[in-house]
Amino acid sequence: MIDKNQIANDFRALQNRICKAIEQADGKAHFHEDVWQRPGGGGGHTRIMQEGKVIEKGGVNFSAVHGEMPAALRDKMKATAKDFFASGVSIVMHPQNPHVPIIHMNIRYFEMSDGTYWFGGGIDLTPHYIDARQAAFFHQALKDTCDAHHPDYYPKYKKWADDYFYIPHREETRGVGGIFFDRLSEGEGRSKKQCFDFVKAVGEAFAPIYTHLISQNKAKKFTDAEKNWQLLRRGRYVEFNLVYDQGTKFGLETSGRIESILMSLPKYASWQYDVQPLKGSAEAYTLANLKKEINWLG
Amino acid sequence: MIDKNQIANDFRALQNRICKAIEQADGKAHFHEDVWQRPGGGGGHTRIMQEGKVIEKGGVNFSAVHGEMPAALRDKMKATAKDFFASGVSIVMHPQNPHVPIIHMNIRYFEMSDGTYWFGGGIDLTPHYIDARQAAFFHQALKDTCDAHHPDYYPKYKKWADDYFYIPHREETRGVGGIFFDRLSEGEGRSKKQCFDFVKAVGEAFAPIYTHLISQNKAKKFTDAEKNWQLLRRGRYVEFNLVYDQGTKFGLETSGRIESILMSLPKYASWQYDVQPLKGSAEAYTLANLKKEINWLG
Repeated sequence: MIDKNQIANDFRALQNRICKAIEQADGKAHFHEDVWQRPGGGGGHTRIMQEGKVIEKGGVNFSAVHGEMPAALRDKMKATAKDFFASGVSIVMHPQNPHVPIIHMNIRYFEMSDGTYWFGGGIDLTPHYIDARQAAFFHQALKDTCDAHHPDYYPKYKKWADDYFYIPHREETRGVGGIFFDRLSEGEGRSKKQCFDFVKAVGEAFAPIYTHLISQNKAKKFTDAEKNWQLLRRGRYVEFNLVYDQGTKFGLETSGRIESILMSLPKYASWQYDVQPLKGSAEAYTLANLKKEINWLG
Repeated sequence: MIDKNQIANDFRALQNRICKAIEQADGKAHFHEDVWQRPGGGGGHTRIMQEGKVIEKGGVNFSAVHGEMPAALRDKMKATAKDFFASGVSIVMHPQNPHVPIIHMNIRYFEMSDGTYWFGGGIDLTPHYIDARQAAFFHQALKDTCDAHHPDYYPKYKKWADDYFYIPHREETRGVGGIFFDRLSEGEGRSKKQCFDFVKAVGEAFAPIYTHLISQNKAKKFTDAEKNWQLLRRGRYVEFNLVYDQGTKFGLETSGRIESILMSLPKYASWQYDVQPLKGSAEAYTLANLKKEINWLG
């Protein structure tokens, strides 16, 4: 039987391995760790890298919190249970070079004192400049991870990511999508252990995928205009995270640890009035491909 | 009798006067105007200044829209009227120099086909570095404007601004406040004309206040560290506007003209992890004074 302590321990061990892999890929900066306590129970280890050689700003958060169900959580979940436990790992990486994509990964576990529980998670990629081959590499790696657990996962969770990582007011997806899932628990022939194994596999997929994308792109030259475009795309990332991201909204509403929640925001972002990329440019290609339901695997 | 066309005409004339005053104060850049139509009726004139000598990015929007009540609006207002009319002027100015404050002004009029109507508006100031004397000048100018119309306006609308321009997750006000009011209509011995006269007075107060603050601060020298602090404060401005500002949220939800709505966001903003100003610094003084219920008039 998988219990919550084992889940939290495995998540924490994953945080350690990922941080090592990112530090190695960066080659210069190290993560700074803040250990924090939650007044109502539990706490977390927030790890931030700033001004690396590859990573301008990135965070790898681990938390395991528990206690009485906050009223906001009870309302949101329409739950009656008295207590809850939640643990997860959350990552956002904003690179220096506009040719290296932004990436996000999250895996999480939630349970209530009435025995209800579920897992959730996802990985999605936000290139400042979309490269179709790299988007295909990314989706293939996710598909391989999913297919090893269930043939339905990739198509279902790919669509879920398209729908979730969407900015309605811009009519744009945040990037080239990825996978997103929530409320995964035993049933339909699936055990709790099988759910957990899948979630861990998603977590383990992160470092090899991102370090590969770093190695492919980190040495590419870029112009001031490309850097400016990166800042504009980061502005959209900020719009998504502050306006739509459920985890961010929930964290802000329930007085979570603000600096840990908003580590997802970039060091620098920009908004300029009504920017329209030139026809046929790499920027125009990117915009044209920030759409749902693109099959990157061709 | 004040009718909606007169209100829209006066608002548009005010937009013109304000743009002239800002161009003169800037001394370099001019406003670029986009005229846009709303599919359901009406439209607007969006005016943007970018890369001025004083103003890095600023917008002065006028709109006058009408038509069938959008469902979202009907729900929000709990209204049953079939048609609506809305007109307003909205301004946000992000200056180059961190010693020049950010400012926001909005005046608006709304009516429904059942005869219900109201005015709203406000001005609030967001210094990157709070200067108590300038905050007092600002509040005195608003108090004088209010007092010429009703002795209750300043205390009531000053408190309303403190409550409205507040960032709960940071436990900070957006700046030194100002005045904010909504749903102002005739009654309690007040005519529609008197409401409109007050709203126009608020609009007219904007240019002299801001051009004075520009002239006081634009020549001040600043360091890279002060510029960095400005970008961080702008990050908070983005957080307020995307997470809490009712007008922005409503605009995004109802598919308003996005580039006009988000003209309020700065050209550059920054988020850095857990920045703590040095004890006794100007940054610490500013943070300590981003609080509700400060009486800047002493």
